[in-house]
Amino acid sequence: MHHILVTFSITPEQHSLFEQAAPGSEIKTIPASEITQQDVLWADIILGNPPVSFLHQNNHLGLLALNSAGSTDFCEPGVLPEHTILTNATGAYGIIISEWMTGMLLYIYNHFASYRKQQMKNCWKKLSLGRPSVYGSRILIVGAGNIGTEFAKRVKAMGAYTIGIRRTNLQPESCFDELHLIDDLDSLLPNADVIALSLPGTLQTTHLINEERLSLFKQGAVLLNVGRGSAVDSDALYHHLASGHLMAAGLDVTEPEPLPENHPLWKLSNAYITPHISGGMDSPIARRIIFEICLNNLRAYLGKGDYQNIVDRQTGYRKH
Amino acid sequence: MHHILVTFSITPEQHSLFEQAAPGSEIKTIPASEITQQDVLWADIILGNPPVSFLHQNNHLGLLALNSAGSTDFCEPGVLPEHTILTNATGAYGIIISEWMTGMLLYIYNHFASYRKQQMKNCWKKLSLGRPSVYGSRILIVGAGNIGTEFAKRVKAMGAYTIGIRRTNLQPESCFDELHLIDDLDSLLPNADVIALSLPGTLQTTHLINEERLSLFKQGAVLLNVGRGSAVDSDALYHHLASGHLMAAGLDVTEPEPLPENHPLWKLSNAYITPHISGGMDSPIARRIIFEICLNNLRAYLGKGDYQNIVDRQTGYRKH
Repeated sequence: MHHILVTFSITPEQHSLFEQAAPGSEIKTIPASEITQQDVLWADIILGNPPVSFLHQNNHLGLLALNSAGSTDFCEPGVLPEHTILTNATGAYGIIISEWMTGMLLYIYNHFASYRKQQMKNCWKKLSLGRPSVYGSRILIVGAGNIGTEFAKRVKAMGAYTIGIRRTNLQPESCFDELHLIDDLDSLLPNADVIALSLPGTLQTTHLINEERLSLFKQGAVLLNVGRGSAVDSDALYHHLASGHLMAAGLDVTEPEPLPENHPLWKLSNAYITPHISGGMDSPIARRIIFEICLNNLRAYLGKGDYQNIVDRQTGYRKH
Repeated sequence: MHHILVTFSITPEQHSLFEQAAPGSEIKTIPASEITQQDVLWADIILGNPPVSFLHQNNHLGLLALNSAGSTDFCEPGVLPEHTILTNATGAYGIIISEWMTGMLLYIYNHFASYRKQQMKNCWKKLSLGRPSVYGSRILIVGAGNIGTEFAKRVKAMGAYTIGIRRTNLQPESCFDELHLIDDLDSLLPNADVIALSLPGTLQTTHLINEERLSLFKQGAVLLNVGRGSAVDSDALYHHLASGHLMAAGLDVTEPEPLPENHPLWKLSNAYITPHISGGMDSPIARRIIFEICLNNLRAYLGKGDYQNIVDRQTGYRKH
């Protein structure tokens, strides 16, 4: 008999599958925005992300299976009892975020924003802006986890040369032409046509791309950032975009976030900003994979099978 | 001793390679827009597309190696002497046009135009528009030649189910889950999430996508058109976009073309129009491949090696 709180919307079929996995348990599905402190205290199993501040007093929480890939706030000391098993949704977002990344790069390379502007004026006119191609480009993927690897697969299939940077595990993979440790970053930046960041927010990644590193970028390079805005120094980026040193930046995450209304990045025509939507729960594919990970971990908690994606609370990364 | 007119810009290295292929010949490079009737009459070999109307009186033209994939106008009776060898640039545009197609589909699926509009207002706000993915979608590619096949490779690598329609040659290819003849079109339309047209302008393809066929499209389907605008009945398309039956159309070609300033398609927010730029000569990759085809065919004309892409003037297609 468990009290299971689900914080994301599920279909009746998915509800039944949770019930079958935990016979006799009570299941409440409440959207994250409507959850009360009481709901959180009631639960001994939470599937999805509850408000962090409501967790502190729940000492009987056995399993927290997040619907996000990031888990920084939940790893802070004092948020969860030591015995609570914490899992994340790594793997759920690789497909949809890599589609955002591939799409953003092609959007920039094809000058779709400029043509949309012309369309608003009913104007049929070819622009002489040059047409870079993914084919033949050199793409540096900083943070080659699930998301970075899915992106590598896509651009590799389009004829790009792919270079991945990872914390650990440099065993060859067919979607990467090269794999490196972070120590090689500075020597790899000057030759990259595209620098794509898919990094978690940690002390090590904060302002990884600062003024000094931006100066190493090739003239006309494109920066993509999903993951965390803190990986890039926004002020430095602004100057390298405004000067025309970079061709463009595609940013789904910013620092600060949300980007304040008066921030100068908004007005740069070569900054392409979306409001942290690349891995949104409105993706049917992401929702399906999140459900599958949560169901698997619910079963594992109740003694059937192995956990997926247990988070190491020291590093914030999934344990391998 | 030949008179060779080149109508596209080439590098000094490329000029030398033409010279080496035709020792002692005179080579003039003149941009298509500045070519006179005299220039055309002077030449017995033309590499690139000259103005069609200047060709009629040139009876000594031996080779016309076009820089375009389409050749309709040059196949009209009376334009070229019977003995002239006509080749096209099929193969040069597959990479760059398929990048436009992949980019346009992801641009639509990721709602980048709506987010760009918000950016203009310095507005950070997630929109609840749904996030379809290429992964898991069913993509019908009508005209599975070089361009359609390159597009199939890209979306297949992203996890789409790909169905190609061809005039001939249905031998299996790994980038197509299914290959069909045009007779199956009507039965395939209702289940496709995306219908991508990469067709030449022929009598058979004119208004292939008409009111009747648009009515067969699935609710929320996306239409992409590169190739020729005449393949789609613009008025019928307008109604199916305005009603919301189709999610969107991405059009690089239209009928009429250029799209007149007062055409209602301009103002539909779910019509994404670019002015026939998907296969532009401003792509370094396309330029390189066109040069290579022209060099090969110049050599073949002078007795060295085989021709590439000889056009069958009856069908307008490349001879296989």
